[in-house]
Amino acid sequence: MSAPEAGRLYLSRMIEGAPFETVVERLKASLAAQGFGILTEIDVAAVMKAKLDKSMPPYRILGACQPGLAFQALAVVPQVGTMLPCNAIVRQDDKVVEVAIIDPVASLGRIEVPGLTKLAGEVREKLTASLAAI
Amino acid sequence: MSAPEAGRLYLSRMIEGAPFETVVERLKASLAAQGFGILTEIDVAAVMKAKLDKSMPPYRILGACQPGLAFQALAVVPQVGTMLPCNAIVRQDDKVVEVAIIDPVASLGRIEVPGLTKLAGEVREKLTASLAAI
Repeated sequence: MSAPEAGRLYLSRMIEGAPFETVVERLKASLAAQGFGILTEIDVAAVMKAKLDKSMPPYRILGACQPGLAFQALAVVPQVGTMLPCNAIVRQDDKVVEVAIIDPVASLGRIEVPGLTKLAGEVREKLTASLAAI
Repeated sequence: MSAPEAGRLYLSRMIEGAPFETVVERLKASLAAQGFGILTEIDVAAVMKAKLDKSMPPYRILGACQPGLAFQALAVVPQVGTMLPCNAIVRQDDKVVEVAIIDPVASLGRIEVPGLTKLAGEVREKLTASLAAI
């Protein structure tokens, strides 16, 4: 699993030997175990086929929300919903499946709001644990 | 309307004299006029009530996607789906309604990928136009 890096907005892990849909289900389970509900699910390949008639490998975006931490974040910066929920993607990359999850600390970038940065750190810990547990 | 600023990850506009749901509908129409489809819609206040039994003013998150530009962005950085769709929020703030939309250029922050930054700029132009047209 890749650690967060400077210049990288997401956490990522390559998973070999498991079919795409299995990885999606395992990701949902590992996010749930860390208290994340899935609020949105987008089948990106289906959207591109429908809207542009373009084909692409399987690609799913899951919107994961830890309600308690989200509620606290909204109290600090009401507009933080522009960054919620935390997106996790699952995509087929030739014979492996990549799972990538937004890094909420890196996403804040130059924004320095002490209470928000602390919460983003807590979310990142839970997302990192989810990724490790897939 | 606020211009993008350093240290600010979203574009924002305060709208007076229109009810919350009217603003949501006007935002959807102005996004559609710029080619954005709404792929997700989250009633944040309902989620918080259901999950935490906490009350908060009306708050909606819309996930807006311009499929052509998203498809191009995915070709440049396959993991860019962790930042898609572009979130627009509508929230009741006492007697005014705020619309805030993620600034895709500011979101990229330190990430320097020439093709991606150019696309983010195109998306920001369309989002800015949507915000102005509400």
